[in-house]
Parts: sequence; structure tokens; C-alpha cells
Amino acid sequence: MITDRLIDKIIEMQNPTCVGLDTLFDYLPDDMKAGAKTFADAAERVLEFNKKIVDSVCDIVPSVKVQIAYYEMYGVAGMQAYEEILKYAAGKGLVVIADAKRNDIGSTASCYAKTFLGETEVNGNAYKPFPSDYVTVNGYLGTDGIAPFVEQCEKNDKGIFVLVKTSNPSSGELQNLVLENGKPIYEYMGGLVEKWGESTVGKYGYSAVGAVVGATHPTEAARLREVLPHTFFLIPGYGAQGGNAEMLKSCFGANGLGGVVNNSRGILCAYKKNGGTYYDAAREACVAMQKDLSSVIGKMGN
Amino acid sequence: MITDRLIDKIIEMQNPTCVGLDTLFDYLPDDMKAGAKTFADAAERVLEFNKKIVDSVCDIVPSVKVQIAYYEMYGVAGMQAYEEILKYAAGKGLVVIADAKRNDIGSTASCYAKTFLGETEVNGNAYKPFPSDYVTVNGYLGTDGIAPFVEQCEKNDKGIFVLVKTSNPSSGELQNLVLENGKPIYEYMGGLVEKWGESTVGKYGYSAVGAVVGATHPTEAARLREVLPHTFFLIPGYGAQGGNAEMLKSCFGANGLGGVVNNSRGILCAYKKNGGTYYDAAREACVAMQKDLSSVIGKMGN
Repeated sequence: MITDRLIDKIIEMQNPTCVGLDTLFDYLPDDMKAGAKTFADAAERVLEFNKKIVDSVCDIVPSVKVQIAYYEMYGVAGMQAYEEILKYAAGKGLVVIADAKRNDIGSTASCYAKTFLGETEVNGNAYKPFPSDYVTVNGYLGTDGIAPFVEQCEKNDKGIFVLVKTSNPSSGELQNLVLENGKPIYEYMGGLVEKWGESTVGKYGYSAVGAVVGATHPTEAARLREVLPHTFFLIPGYGAQGGNAEMLKSCFGANGLGGVVNNSRGILCAYKKNGGTYYDAAREACVAMQKDLSSVIGKMGN
Repeated sequence: MITDRLIDKIIEMQNPTCVGLDTLFDYLPDDMKAGAKTFADAAERVLEFNKKIVDSVCDIVPSVKVQIAYYEMYGVAGMQAYEEILKYAAGKGLVVIADAKRNDIGSTASCYAKTFLGETEVNGNAYKPFPSDYVTVNGYLGTDGIAPFVEQCEKNDKGIFVLVKTSNPSSGELQNLVLENGKPIYEYMGGLVEKWGESTVGKYGYSAVGAVVGATHPTEAARLREVLPHTFFLIPGYGAQGGNAEMLKSCFGANGLGGVVNNSRGILCAYKKNGGTYYDAAREACVAMQKDLSSVIGKMGN
């Protein structure tokens, strides 16, 4: 069961870090950028950069999150690089989260679910378009936009993370509105997530249907941890967005489990601040992040 | 201004129809499906099918909506077909809506906005990844996830449609929840849309920031039409999803304007019901839809 395997790795490495491969071309060192003119050039360089990051960190972090926007922006060539980095990271043993925030009506959601978590058939020949362990989704359309993803989770041992309380400054504009029953929208969405996960709860008590809960909103995170006992969190916002270890502590239970913490720019661009090669600097940033997180969370899986 | 141009075409053709190119491989006639084995085969056949549909209807409908899920499901080859059909439809004079329902934090939303509505630069060389006139977006993250799209709308004369009240059966699960001020969430989201559009109102009084409002929910649509005077609607749900002309009448004002009505399966698969070639049947379905809509809406732009 996918969330069990992710947690097994977190416990083994004592590290709940997710490296966000949200790699802007501008993040690359000058020598890697030099001479690139086309989307194919840019995509090739970004892919090379990301592969070296993966090589450098895959023995000390359990997972990567690959933000599709940073590949799609280079058109078809970017999507080719996206497919390749998903497969490369999986080949290195990492749990791979496709950050695509997909959402649509049931028939269309079914296509998306197969694209990331399953297979598409062409006259009986089946292939995996953009193979991932998890994909992020947006629940604004309600259950029939999510059910096709849950179906693929059950069928192929995959997972999803549903947006509940996002890390961005204006996330409260809609998500913190209070309903007539006195509860905020993010809590209602969390309740749906808990329900959508009922069929896939694993040995640690967490389901394959997780929630995105930003490190930048500790009050909301604490409340969500309390009311969503079976929901594993994908926690963005650590580092460049302003979240720190103390702020996200409440996402974790007394057993040191409960979520995986994403960091993108703080790892990818560590070399710009600390010097050295980008891949060595990325590894050092992961080591530092592990120390920072475990100092607050304590032993994971105790 | 893009919404003005869309409305100009609607008035000229007396037709507020949007043809949804949500083409599943299974929609194709058997002879077009025969022998296809790979994603490249499937994408090529779907592209050929869609081009003939575009050729057959481009003089009688103002716009197409191209649902990205139905291309991404064939991987990189599918994305190549997506790029090509967007450009082909634009070349035939159609207003092109990329139905991608993108949503993310500001920095990432900025990448998405450039992908569909602007340009990506590689060392000073700029290209358009998936060029569209409009892209659909999801507002769950609030203003800072939408602002980068509005910025591209202003800069490049483009538009967006924000999910407000979607056409699917479970859309009410979240969207119809009532806030403590007594208003439903969809109406609050509509209010945000009206505000996001303030800077781009055109000669007909509608802005470049439109709303997705399902034909399947006439009560909500009527309320939204009343409270969102400057918001143009993209109206899905007509036909296969159960919406009909009478149900979506309230999306239109006394001047016969206010939205564009999408139909996908009812046009793409008309040949399965009515016989003839798929492209002739699609044209006939568009003619019938024009008659059906105008019988209820009346003269557009009166």
C-alpha cells in the first residue's frame, strides 16, 4: 500500500522530506544555461539538472514532488522531460508525486486518473502516460470528480493528495470562510478527504487519500491533524515560502508520523547561497532539513 | 478585447455554441481506429478527426473548447496533438478555449499563465507553449493563484474562465454550501470573479475573466446571472450531461448575450446516432443546436 511504503521509507531514513523538482530554467548554473535557445534545449538542461539532483539525494530522502507547470511551460519538449524525470526518480527508488492539481467532472477526471495513476488503452494496447505514485488533485467539484482517482488508487496501489489548506498567502480567502455550521471550508474539505480515504487505510492508519496542508498556516494544520486521523499530509511551504519546522510540527502525531514536507527552491537553489556544485549543495540542504525537521518532530515511527 | 471578439462572432453567427473537442479515441469511426497501436497512432487519429470537425463547423460556430485531459492521456504524443489542434483551430478563425482547469500558488500559476496565454523565454528567445485565447482555471487558492492569469490577460489580450458552479452532479457538495453570511460558496466565488475582471471590461460590458456555470443547474445560473453583470459565462452540460436550452436560458440577458454553450459528445458523436460522416453529422448537430439555443435566447445582440 503506497502510503505504507512512503512511511516505511520515512522511518528507515528518519526523514519526512520531499524534494520539489519545480525547476525553473533560471535556477540552473550559468554554464548549464549557456547556448540554450529552444524549448528542447531548455527541457534537456532542466532534465539533466534534475537527474543529478535525484542521484545526489535519493539515498537520504524518501520522495520527490514534480510540479508539472515547470515542464509544460516548455511545451511538448517539456512534457517529454516530465515523463523522463518521473521514470528516472522512480527508478532510483523514490516515491514520486506528480504535482498537477487536476480536477474535472467524472468522465474527464477518469482520463486524468489513468494518465497519472493508471494506463490508457489504444485498441487493447495499454501504456502509462505519466506514471506516478501520487497525483495532487483539487476537490472543488466534489465527490464525482475525485472518485475516478480513488478507483485508480484502489486498482493500482496509488495515492492522491487533495488540496485542503494551501500554503499561499491568499489561501484563506476561500478556504477559511466559515460555513453556517460554524466550520471553515478547509475543515469541510478535510472531512471529505477523510471519507474518500476510507477504503484504503493501511497498516499505519493512514489512507491513500492524503491532504495538502501548508506549513505556513500552523493553526489550521493543527486543527486538521486533530480531525483527520487517517489522512496523511503533503506539506508545502517550508523554506522559501516562509514555513519552518516549528510551524509544521502540529502536522505530526506523537509517533512522529503524519506527513511529508516539501522543499523546492531551498534545495534546488542551495548552491546559490552556500556555494559548491548544485547537486552537492542540494544534498547538504537535505541533510540540514532532516536535522531541522527531526529536532522538532522527534523519532519517526516510535 | 477577447470577450468582445467572441461576442462579435456570436452576434455575427447568431450562435453562442462552443464545440468541445473532448475527443476520446473510442469516439472515432472504426476505420479511423483500425490498426492504431501506440499513443502516437491514437494521437494522430484523434488530431485528424478533430481537424475535420473544425473544418466542418468553423464557419457556423464561434469557438472551440479543447479539453487537455483527452490529449494528455496519450502522453507526449497527445500533447503534441494538443498543440497542433489549438493552432489549427485558431488558424480557422475560431476562438480557442484551453480547458485545463489550472490552479496553483502564485509562482507556479505564473508559469501556467504563460504556458496558455503568453510566452516562455529561454535565454531571451520567447515561444508560445500551448497558445490559447482563454484557459479555464480553478479559484480554490484565492486571488494570488488567479492574479498571474489576469496579468497575462491584460498583457496579451487573453481571457480566463473560473470554475464557479460546475455542471457535474456532485458540484453542490462544496459549491452549494452556505456561508455564515447566508450566501452559497458558488456565489462568493462568483463575486471574486467579478472583482478579478474589473480591469478588463469591454464594450459589451463583459470582462476577460469569465465564469464556468453549468447548464445543469438553472437555479444557480439564474442567481449568478443576476449578481455578476460583467461576467461572461462558459456553460457546459448541454446535451449528454442532461442540460437543455430551456435550462440555460437564464444565463443570458434580455439582449441575448451572456455566455457561450459547450457541447462535446452531442456534436462529436452525432454520426453514431444520425448516420452520415462524422464531420457532416457534427455540422448538422451544430445547426440544430443553433436553432435550439436561439429559439430560447432570441436574437443575440439586439
